[in-house]
Amino acid sequence: MVRRWRKLKKYFEARKEKLLTLLKRKRCDGAVFLATSRTYDPNIRYFTGMRLEPHYTFVCLLVTKDSYKLYFSRGEEAGPLYVDEVRVVSKKDEFKSELKKEIKSWKRVAINYNSFLLSHSNLLGRKRKVDIGRDLLKLRSRKDELEVKSLKKVCYYTDLTARELLSSFTEFGKENELASFLFDRASKLGAQLAFSPIVATGKRSSQVHPVPSYTTSPLRRVTLVDFGLRMDGYCSDLTLTIFDRKPQESELSMIEVLDGLVQEIEEGIIEGLSCGKLFLRFKEILMRLNQKPQHALGHGIGLEVHELPSLSESSRERIQINSTFTLEPGMYLKDFGLRVENCYLLGNRKLLRLTKNGGIYVL
Amino acid sequence: MVRRWRKLKKYFEARKEKLLTLLKRKRCDGAVFLATSRTYDPNIRYFTGMRLEPHYTFVCLLVTKDSYKLYFSRGEEAGPLYVDEVRVVSKKDEFKSELKKEIKSWKRVAINYNSFLLSHSNLLGRKRKVDIGRDLLKLRSRKDELEVKSLKKVCYYTDLTARELLSSFTEFGKENELASFLFDRASKLGAQLAFSPIVATGKRSSQVHPVPSYTTSPLRRVTLVDFGLRMDGYCSDLTLTIFDRKPQESELSMIEVLDGLVQEIEEGIIEGLSCGKLFLRFKEILMRLNQKPQHALGHGIGLEVHELPSLSESSRERIQINSTFTLEPGMYLKDFGLRVENCYLLGNRKLLRLTKNGGIYVL
Repeated sequence: MVRRWRKLKKYFEARKEKLLTLLKRKRCDGAVFLATSRTYDPNIRYFTGMRLEPHYTFVCLLVTKDSYKLYFSRGEEAGPLYVDEVRVVSKKDEFKSELKKEIKSWKRVAINYNSFLLSHSNLLGRKRKVDIGRDLLKLRSRKDELEVKSLKKVCYYTDLTARELLSSFTEFGKENELASFLFDRASKLGAQLAFSPIVATGKRSSQVHPVPSYTTSPLRRVTLVDFGLRMDGYCSDLTLTIFDRKPQESELSMIEVLDGLVQEIEEGIIEGLSCGKLFLRFKEILMRLNQKPQHALGHGIGLEVHELPSLSESSRERIQINSTFTLEPGMYLKDFGLRVENCYLLGNRKLLRLTKNGGIYVL
Repeated sequence: MVRRWRKLKKYFEARKEKLLTLLKRKRCDGAVFLATSRTYDPNIRYFTGMRLEPHYTFVCLLVTKDSYKLYFSRGEEAGPLYVDEVRVVSKKDEFKSELKKEIKSWKRVAINYNSFLLSHSNLLGRKRKVDIGRDLLKLRSRKDELEVKSLKKVCYYTDLTARELLSSFTEFGKENELASFLFDRASKLGAQLAFSPIVATGKRSSQVHPVPSYTTSPLRRVTLVDFGLRMDGYCSDLTLTIFDRKPQESELSMIEVLDGLVQEIEEGIIEGLSCGKLFLRFKEILMRLNQKPQHALGHGIGLEVHELPSLSESSRERIQINSTFTLEPGMYLKDFGLRVENCYLLGNRKLLRLTKNGGIYVL
C-alpha cells in the first residue's frame, strides 16, 4: 500500500506544481476549493486523491505555495491522500473560523466558479475572487498517465456492461428495468453510474434527455440507451441504439448514414484539429439530410462527464494529444431517434477507441 | 388531465403570490432561477410544476409581477406546467441574449444563492443581486396540502420498501447488493433514490457517511441502512439498524437508550418549539452516556432532502404547523453504530409519523 502511495505521489506532485504555476500566473495568494452537499468539485479529487462523493457534508482544499491542506467533516471517508495536512472538523462553524484565519493575509483568492455557489461567497469575505474554473478544465484536458489508466479501466468495464446489456436485452420489460440492470452491474463492479442513465424506447427515443419510464409499454422497435460508469472518480459515456427487429428501409438508410458519419469523423481527427470546425463538418452532413444537430458532437470526459474540449459550434478548443473525449452523433426524427457514442483518446498521434461497444445493434 | 391541471393550478397560483410578495418586500424587479447540468434548483419545480431532473442542460424561470416565463433546452421533458409562457430554446447563446434583453430594465435581481454558481453570475451583468435563498427555504418550510399529499405518498412507498428490505435481508451478500435492491425497488415504483444510499455493515456502521462497499465481507452483526426515495420531486429519508443475531448486552442497553430517546423527543415536539433547544436536549442525553452527537438530530424534508428547519445546535428555527422533518438520533461507538430515522409532519397541533418503519430490528 505504501509502495503504491509512493508511486502515485509523483503524479499528484506534478499536478500540484501545475496548480501553483497557475496561481502565480493569476497573481493569487492561494486557492480555495469547496465541496458541500449542494456542490461538488472534482478538482479536489484531482489535486488530493480524495475519494470525493457528492454527499459529503463539506470538504475544503486550501492551497498556497507553502501549504496544501484538506479539511473535511467528521464521519466521512477520505481514501489515500496526497496533501501535506489533513484536518477533520466536527462543526462547520469551527471550519469557517479556521478558514477565515488561514486566508486573513490573502488579497487575491483563486476559486473554481464552476462549482462555487454564491451562498459560499461569504466564506471569502471581501477578498478579490479570481476565477480559475476554465483554466482548471484546460489543465485537466490533457490527461496524465495515471488518468489514462483509470479511463481505460472504466471504459473496459463499460464495454463489458454494454455487452451484458445486449445479451440480456430481450429479458427487460420496461425502460426502468434496464436502468436497474445498469445500476446493479455498476454496483457489482464497485462502480457508480456516472449520470442518471437515459433509456428511451419507441417514439421516446426521439427525445434527447428523457427519464427512464416505468409506465411506457414494453421495450420495442428501437431503444436508445445512454449510460456511463464512474470508477475511482473517472467517468465513461456510451450510447447504444438497439432494434429488436429488422429496421425498416428508411431506418436502414439512416443507420448507414450515421455509420458513415462516425467513420468519416474518426478518420479526420488529428492533433490540433479545431473542435468548432469538426462540429461544422458534422452539421453539414446532417443539413444535407434536412436535419439539424440537436446537441454537441461530443465532449471531453474525465473526472466529469462533460469536460473540455467541447465539440460544439462555438468551441474554441483544439484536439490535443492525451485528451479524452466522446463522439456522440445523433439523428432525431419524429418517430424515433438514433445515437451512437464512444469514448476516445488521442494518443501519440493516433486515435484510440477507449470504448468499442457504443453503436447501433439489430438483435 | 385538464381537470387535474385546473385543480392543481390554484396551489401554484398561491405559491406564485407568495413569491411576488417576497420580491416586493426585497424591492426586487424580478427573480431569475437557474438549473443546469452543474446545479439544480428545486424552487423551479415548486413554482412551475416542471418535472425537473438534475441532468437538464439548462432551465431558467424568470419572474416579474407581469410575467412568469420558463425557458428550457430542446429535447428535455417538462411535465405539466403552471406558468404563463414557455420557451424551448435550442442554444444556450440564444437563451443568454434573450435573458439579457428581458432583464435589461431591472435594477435588483432576486436569486437563490444556494443553487446559483459564480460561473452563472455573468448572465446577470452588473445588476444588483439579492439573495432570497433562505427566504425561499423558509417559505417552503410550511407545506401546502398538495405537498403534504406528495410527502405522504413517498413516505408510504418508503415504508413499503423498508419492509421488503427487511424480509429479503438474509438474501443480500455485500453492502452494494442491498444498494442495488433499493435502486431496483425505487425504479419499479417510478421513483428515484433521493440520495446515494448508505449501507454499512459491522464496524463500518460507526461511520456517518460511508459509501456502500463491494469488497467488505458479507452483511453481518449490525447493518445500518439510510436511504430515501424521490417521487414527483418529493423526498423521504429513513434509517434502519438491523441486527442479524441477538444483540450483546452492551448493544441492548444502547438500543434501549435510543428507543427511549426517540420517544422522549417525539413527545416533546409542539408548535413553536425551538429547534436549537430540542437539539440541546438530545445532546444532554448523549453526554450523560459519555457520547457526543456526530450530526444534527434531524432536518426539514420536502423537495430537498435537507430543508428547514435544521434540528442542530445553531438552529434559529422553530417547529411550525405543517412543517415536515426527520428525526435521526444516532450513537456511534468504536465497533458499531446505531441510528434510527423517520419522517414526521406536525399537523394541526399533532405530530404525525409519515414513515413508520425506521428503527432498530433484530432478525
